[in-house]
Amino acid sequence: MNNSFLQDTSSAATWIWYPGDFEIVLANKMQNRRTERGTFFPVFWKIDSHYVLMDFHKVFDVPEQETVDIYVEGEYHVKLDGKAFEGSPKQITVPAGKHKINIKVFNQTNVPAIYVKGKTIVSDATWLVTFEDKEWIDETGKASDISATKWLNAGSWNFNSPTQLPSQFMLPTKEQSAASTTKGNNSMLVDFGKETFGFIKLHGLKGNGNLSVYYGESEEEALSTEHCETLDRVEVNNPAEKDETMKLSKAYRFVNVQYDAGVSLDSVSMMYEYADVKERGSFACNDEEINRIYDVAKYTFELNTREFFIDGIKRDRWVWSGDAYQSYLMNYYLYFDSETVKRTTYALRGKDPVTGHINTIMDYTFFWFLGIYDYYLYTGDKHFIAQNYDRMKSLMDYVLARRNKDGLMEWMSGDWIFIDWAAGLSKEGEVSFEQLLLARSLETMALCANIADDKDAATQYNTLAADMRKKLFEIYWNDEKQALVHSRVDGKQTENVTRYANMFSIFFDYFNQQQKNQVKTSVLLNDDIQKITTPYMRFYELEALCAMGEQSYVLKEMKDYWGGMLKLGATSFWEEYNPSKEGAEHYAMYGREFGKSLCHAWGASPLYLLGKYYLGVKPTAPGYANYVVEPNLGGLEWMQGKVPTPAGEIELYVSKTQIKITGAAGTGVLKFSSKTKPVCKEGTIVDKGNDHYELIVEIGKSYTVQYVL
Amino acid sequence: MNNSFLQDTSSAATWIWYPGDFEIVLANKMQNRRTERGTFFPVFWKIDSHYVLMDFHKVFDVPEQETVDIYVEGEYHVKLDGKAFEGSPKQITVPAGKHKINIKVFNQTNVPAIYVKGKTIVSDATWLVTFEDKEWIDETGKASDISATKWLNAGSWNFNSPTQLPSQFMLPTKEQSAASTTKGNNSMLVDFGKETFGFIKLHGLKGNGNLSVYYGESEEEALSTEHCETLDRVEVNNPAEKDETMKLSKAYRFVNVQYDAGVSLDSVSMMYEYADVKERGSFACNDEEINRIYDVAKYTFELNTREFFIDGIKRDRWVWSGDAYQSYLMNYYLYFDSETVKRTTYALRGKDPVTGHINTIMDYTFFWFLGIYDYYLYTGDKHFIAQNYDRMKSLMDYVLARRNKDGLMEWMSGDWIFIDWAAGLSKEGEVSFEQLLLARSLETMALCANIADDKDAATQYNTLAADMRKKLFEIYWNDEKQALVHSRVDGKQTENVTRYANMFSIFFDYFNQQQKNQVKTSVLLNDDIQKITTPYMRFYELEALCAMGEQSYVLKEMKDYWGGMLKLGATSFWEEYNPSKEGAEHYAMYGREFGKSLCHAWGASPLYLLGKYYLGVKPTAPGYANYVVEPNLGGLEWMQGKVPTPAGEIELYVSKTQIKITGAAGTGVLKFSSKTKPVCKEGTIVDKGNDHYELIVEIGKSYTVQYVL
Repeated sequence: MNNSFLQDTSSAATWIWYPGDFEIVLANKMQNRRTERGTFFPVFWKIDSHYVLMDFHKVFDVPEQETVDIYVEGEYHVKLDGKAFEGSPKQITVPAGKHKINIKVFNQTNVPAIYVKGKTIVSDATWLVTFEDKEWIDETGKASDISATKWLNAGSWNFNSPTQLPSQFMLPTKEQSAASTTKGNNSMLVDFGKETFGFIKLHGLKGNGNLSVYYGESEEEALSTEHCETLDRVEVNNPAEKDETMKLSKAYRFVNVQYDAGVSLDSVSMMYEYADVKERGSFACNDEEINRIYDVAKYTFELNTREFFIDGIKRDRWVWSGDAYQSYLMNYYLYFDSETVKRTTYALRGKDPVTGHINTIMDYTFFWFLGIYDYYLYTGDKHFIAQNYDRMKSLMDYVLARRNKDGLMEWMSGDWIFIDWAAGLSKEGEVSFEQLLLARSLETMALCANIADDKDAATQYNTLAADMRKKLFEIYWNDEKQALVHSRVDGKQTENVTRYANMFSIFFDYFNQQQKNQVKTSVLLNDDIQKITTPYMRFYELEALCAMGEQSYVLKEMKDYWGGMLKLGATSFWEEYNPSKEGAEHYAMYGREFGKSLCHAWGASPLYLLGKYYLGVKPTAPGYANYVVEPNLGGLEWMQGKVPTPAGEIELYVSKTQIKITGAAGTGVLKFSSKTKPVCKEGTIVDKGNDHYELIVEIGKSYTVQYVL
Repeated sequence: MNNSFLQDTSSAATWIWYPGDFEIVLANKMQNRRTERGTFFPVFWKIDSHYVLMDFHKVFDVPEQETVDIYVEGEYHVKLDGKAFEGSPKQITVPAGKHKINIKVFNQTNVPAIYVKGKTIVSDATWLVTFEDKEWIDETGKASDISATKWLNAGSWNFNSPTQLPSQFMLPTKEQSAASTTKGNNSMLVDFGKETFGFIKLHGLKGNGNLSVYYGESEEEALSTEHCETLDRVEVNNPAEKDETMKLSKAYRFVNVQYDAGVSLDSVSMMYEYADVKERGSFACNDEEINRIYDVAKYTFELNTREFFIDGIKRDRWVWSGDAYQSYLMNYYLYFDSETVKRTTYALRGKDPVTGHINTIMDYTFFWFLGIYDYYLYTGDKHFIAQNYDRMKSLMDYVLARRNKDGLMEWMSGDWIFIDWAAGLSKEGEVSFEQLLLARSLETMALCANIADDKDAATQYNTLAADMRKKLFEIYWNDEKQALVHSRVDGKQTENVTRYANMFSIFFDYFNQQQKNQVKTSVLLNDDIQKITTPYMRFYELEALCAMGEQSYVLKEMKDYWGGMLKLGATSFWEEYNPSKEGAEHYAMYGREFGKSLCHAWGASPLYLLGKYYLGVKPTAPGYANYVVEPNLGGLEWMQGKVPTPAGEIELYVSKTQIKITGAAGTGVLKFSSKTKPVCKEGTIVDKGNDHYELIVEIGKSYTVQYVL
């Protein structure tokens, strides 16, 4: 294990565990909270569990004798330099000098975890952990061989007090009252004013009988006691008035409470449940509709950022890799919360052996790799890569073992090829989109193999990636159609051109400039190519257009599509939007009247587009060591905002005559064009020719550029 | 999955789970009950856990509508023909006709388990289970593909009532009183008369202060408060007299209870904890010492037969594969309890991925395969082989991936090569014993691959096995030494000859008759070859001698070795016995004064030797479809006994002039030699020449043979 990425600061104590174990068990709890009309609705793939027996250890050099308090979730023993203390001590004394402390914990029910606190001896992520224990190797006559064991650094988060047990973790809540309540005979229709999430609280509940809570993201849904997606049944038997809070948090704007004649109820409120993350990014401009879109996207994303990045709060409440991948990207422009990215990555991956694709979906396995690629680019966090590398490798082994005789990904028993919700989308033969995602995943493996110091593997992955990219063009590029075709069936190119592989090849830079221009016309702006209706794939389509400089076009699209939902009264963005539908038709999906989620993470993509392609900020070296800022007003008069980095925020104000920028993290390059020679007092502008200019932006420094767009 | 081995009898309901999951979690609980002087002492290898999310299903053809009661350990839903009932119903109604019932259960804490009981719809081992759920495949446009999922038959045991929850399983107990008690001032030395196991119960405990219980397999150990291996500390705070039972069961004959002046105690008894298995085999003869050896072996085996076959009851209380392998063999001649064999096999194997050898020991991985070979031979249970086959395969993949460049097993980082506790035993280079065990393991894989209908794999395993057997002789046989040498180092045979590979090659029939005779002289009966001191390897040494017809010699050895322990007052057989030691010296091992276990399963081998090589009963086709009976008095005047089979017991009485036999299970052949022409009224004796005779023994029939030995 390469520990060189972790600094040994030995300061604050925190609860620690085997990396990924807390996350996997938390995901089990969270995902299995899904219900459908009162019925438990678990995921349909293998889920894993924690290692039940864990060894934690670290060597300390203690300046003077100290007493150390020990808190453990599980049965345990403590060893000092290999010798066990009697029983399971709550406190030990460690003499001055160099000492190795081992704590071995068994816990079948919860994740084995420890919290250790002395003056200098504290539990933190610098401890080593293993689910195997090769101390005994000494006894077999062979030298102790630490390399036989997969030691990792401990996992941790923010459980910094001894009483804050990881097993008891719950998201925080705060009470919120109804915006309006309509009382009927033995019923109450409550409107919270906007989409929300949490535990319904019934106040002053009294009497004998049954009560039902029908939830609705729309009023229609709450009123449809037969077809609403979620509900709660309560047996009331309260001689005196009592408040009662529902056991499961749910998504809704409206609740329709209906109860027997023998039951009375004062009022209904809710405990809003949320993830305690900080907003660091921002965006504002002269267009109020865009500002409103940004705000509702932010709220949509807030609701879907929970223990993990989930798909939508009403129905699945599950962690889906393709959905999470987009959330990661939005996150880099709003919260920059690395912990939620890592947690989601661990939860999605689960444990070995790999018995199926992530979420059972081939493309979602690849998005998992891509998420790591981006995580490293945005955060520069090598330590997580090293900790996670073995899981990447065994998942890639699974993938590579499922290539067909031509080395291509093709449907195999057990696979779901998703791509997108789109009518008539063919999954037959070898689909170009999957090969493209594999190529990018292999590039990710090569990158991470280098970080994990697995040089031979890096070379192999690079070769495989180059080979896949080559095949992608050899097999799927069609000169006549000026596009990658959708698939190959029985060894022959199909006639079918779809947007998927083409748009990804633009922002993956797989196309050369000529191909990009061809594809823009032949595919992206070609109405004969099947249109995309989910915000999921709209995300990439608009990204591809932005990457081609079509910000003005995309701004109009944003106003049409997201603005269209707002005009229909949306208080959060939907799973799918088709402007041709009317009224309650919008709520139907999957053949169910209220099947559609009205608050879906993938609906929040303007957060990403506005940050990356309008403010124009993106890292060009891991962790923003280098970055570019290429503002593009896309027809706006002015815009301003912040983009978070691992160290501070990049701040930007852009109008048609002025750019103000403050740097952060590393060294940036502001790129812009100007009809006149631009001026900046704080730095030196370099003329790149053809009206293009560049300014080096240093960390923490502010610059004002006068120019003419 | 080949389900053809399981009959669909649909009779009694029982709790069911994923096969192996109950067993693995029970092993976690049991093995982590080990303590050393009050300190938690867990195993030092990876342990696994249950799948937390499980789908159970079965298709029923119901003659008329029935109500079905449902009991579940975990959160669940129930589906009838793919449609879920609301909530988690405790009872459902199933209409007449063909219906599929699915119950999906999530349980993070305990093994997901169900108990279903209707008139015809009941939960039993014919249900299918999976930790994946590929129902959704329908939705992806591909036909439902059940082969994508590893369906297995449900696991079960004997939890036949709805209130008998698998998660609450405990071995039964019964109270036993002390044989004698010596009271001191604030102390009590209690003798239970013989080695025992269970929970100490303190009667009439009263007052304030501390009390300690020091356990001893010997009186010396109980009195050695500083060095006894196990102890309990009790804080007493009882104003009135109270009985208190210790939380953990322990092994002892003596307990030394010491308490503060403020504490008083009436008496001490114990709750004997035992596995509820039935004795079906028996042995008696004219030699009272041998009868006593058999009885003490039986009691030793009883004590070590618990949730699993464990090594010894005092110290490890763990499931060790090499030890368990011998217990299986003893079991076939005493209990014939298949459930304990299967449970132990599951517990040892754990789950994928394989990250180390079983118990970390290379030879113990091989004994796991050998145990399955024998299990099939004795029981004929194809269903277990089919259920277990994937786990066999992935463990063998692990082994094969660890061969060196010459295709041989050699120490690799993380391995423990055990062989035996013996001074100076070399583990360097490629040890012949490990190659021999690999060859036999590959034969087992070939056998089981055929049963699991994996014909290609069977061919490959057969080829690999033949190759290993060939190498064994090419590399290790030494004509001069007339033996297999111990090892090869740097490509050269060593000079070292040990007994291990040589004695196994006899009863594995790897030697031809000439080699057997050579090895008997050059190794087995050669005092210059390092002697074996553990009953563990004595087991195989005596087996090899018996297989060579040396029953008289072995009888004498038995009387010396096991009789020797009895003469020293042993009430159960020990981990190791060295007649040259004196007094309490016998109790030391591993550098600890009382480190030796005085009740070790491998000490009970006379059970096996007397049944297999004196009564002479052994299966020659799976499940005793065919068997031979070759009685050998080995110098005894007469002997009689029973040998259990899957269907009834084979009964035998043998003197020098008469053999009485009753057949069971399948068709047996009684083989014997006689100086005169033997007579049998019930069957036809065939003269095989050279004074050898055979009699066919049919199922359930009794025969009396008059002959002269």
